[in-house]
Amino acid sequence: MTGLKQQLLGLVEHDLERIEIALVDNLTPHLDLVRQIAEHLIFSGGKRLRPLLIILSARICGHENDFVARFATIFEFLHTATLLHDDVIDGATIRRGKPVAHSIWGVPITILVGDFLLARALCIASETENPRIIRVVSEMTEEMSQGEILQLMRKGDFRITEEDYMSVIRRKTGILIEGACRTGAILADAAPVYENALTTYGSHLGLVFQIADDILDYTADTAVIGKTIGADLKEGKLTLPVIHALKAAGPDDRAVMETIITAPDFSPAEFDTLIRLVEKYDGIAYARTIAREHVAAAKRELDTFPPSPVREILYMMADYALDRRA
Amino acid sequence: MTGLKQQLLGLVEHDLERIEIALVDNLTPHLDLVRQIAEHLIFSGGKRLRPLLIILSARICGHENDFVARFATIFEFLHTATLLHDDVIDGATIRRGKPVAHSIWGVPITILVGDFLLARALCIASETENPRIIRVVSEMTEEMSQGEILQLMRKGDFRITEEDYMSVIRRKTGILIEGACRTGAILADAAPVYENALTTYGSHLGLVFQIADDILDYTADTAVIGKTIGADLKEGKLTLPVIHALKAAGPDDRAVMETIITAPDFSPAEFDTLIRLVEKYDGIAYARTIAREHVAAAKRELDTFPPSPVREILYMMADYALDRRA
Repeated sequence: MTGLKQQLLGLVEHDLERIEIALVDNLTPHLDLVRQIAEHLIFSGGKRLRPLLIILSARICGHENDFVARFATIFEFLHTATLLHDDVIDGATIRRGKPVAHSIWGVPITILVGDFLLARALCIASETENPRIIRVVSEMTEEMSQGEILQLMRKGDFRITEEDYMSVIRRKTGILIEGACRTGAILADAAPVYENALTTYGSHLGLVFQIADDILDYTADTAVIGKTIGADLKEGKLTLPVIHALKAAGPDDRAVMETIITAPDFSPAEFDTLIRLVEKYDGIAYARTIAREHVAAAKRELDTFPPSPVREILYMMADYALDRRA
Repeated sequence: MTGLKQQLLGLVEHDLERIEIALVDNLTPHLDLVRQIAEHLIFSGGKRLRPLLIILSARICGHENDFVARFATIFEFLHTATLLHDDVIDGATIRRGKPVAHSIWGVPITILVGDFLLARALCIASETENPRIIRVVSEMTEEMSQGEILQLMRKGDFRITEEDYMSVIRRKTGILIEGACRTGAILADAAPVYENALTTYGSHLGLVFQIADDILDYTADTAVIGKTIGADLKEGKLTLPVIHALKAAGPDDRAVMETIITAPDFSPAEFDTLIRLVEKYDGIAYARTIAREHVAAAKRELDTFPPSPVREILYMMADYALDRRA
């Protein structure tokens, strides 16, 4: 599947370059320290998925101009703001293979740089002078904070259902990706049928990305994903593979899993036991099945558009969302 | 001066009631816990200065309708968001006589409720569908976060100048009060001369409020202001009274002050010594003089408007800003 990634990267290379330039140009803090902290995370190898989606969504609706890359930064700045705050909240230590900002500069300033990026994103949104885009971006931001709160409230709660999980990931990840696609369509002044198709595409894609991320937390190499395996569970976050396994397990295995999950600091051996039980009850296979359904649903939405190279790229992104290795 | 406060409250009683209703009506989180945490601070006896200023600014420009109170909540929600984050950042324990939110619900959720209120404020701003208001609100939010960062960077630095101090308080307090006045004028579709007058009035008023707050940190009763006396200095925040005293003091007294300021945890006796030195070098009197100049400058701006009862109220607010006891 590295082939798919390479192929994709080749097709969007020029767009990615424009995004990098726009990110530097539109950060514009007064203070060097703010730039330094923001850049530590912004330029640490993010996939630029959200800004790329806004550009591709505008393009598939026939819109192409120099402003799109600038407005695309809204979504990367918002994303970075939430990552800065989430890492503080989760007590994370590593992100994208680098020490997290708050471990270098401290919690107080990291919270404030997060606030700055949130405000910066909304400021750039206001520069579109398009009330619908501004509304999408601000409502999205509101939903995301509530998604994070919901997740926090459900920490360590092994009674969490698949429905609860989907509701959390829809808010904390889905909405931003959905919003990027919708904003691209609005910038293009697309007909409602196209705006709706892209919005729905984005909402499925967002779920795929998050489910894939949650699967990687059980399956990937730390060296590849740049964070610690099993990190979600250590933070008390129950994701789809384990939620499904808990539901499918008999009482004995379920009891073993609950004991490990609720242990304040489980050992690598206990994590291995948990993984084996998650596999026994097909937790990862199940999560992949659900994600695949959303890949298919995302692609169906693209059928609204006539065939074109950009439609192919958007198809490929749906496949990549699920099959990436990091 | 309690007379002035009573008189003012009588004149704006109906507006304050409308503001309270609008604050309840426009909070609208999905989660009860978010409402509970936000309300803990929102309904803890805030002065409603910012929403009141938007209503009065619109009124002096001849604008009066039911939407103004709703849009006035933008400024109270933003203000509350910054207080929630500031209390986390400063490690504060008491605010308005109550334990701070993060001491009850923990830091993570408090950060997220702050994010929610920030987003909520920008969402309500977007509902004005007025690009200028949206721009003012989002730029203001950006500036405020940078003001807080600047203050944080200057913590415990006794070389801070009066100019640095003014620059910090302009960003962290002035801008929001200035923004409220400007937004009232924009809502009223006021002529530029009136919008500018109110904006400048607000910027002076904001400085007066913050300088008065900083004076109270040296002079008030804990029971009255609802927080600990000397709290700023304990947090390493050097404000105008001490900045002036440090500048005016001879080398010996200056050395004594610097020793106390840089001590990790000074005693009540040391704080008394510091207060005596601040008084010896007229630190508080000097801060009052500067604030009085801004009161006068604020009032001068109001001369742009013909005499009216609302102009009188705005005059009184400038006096109240300086002479309040809490």
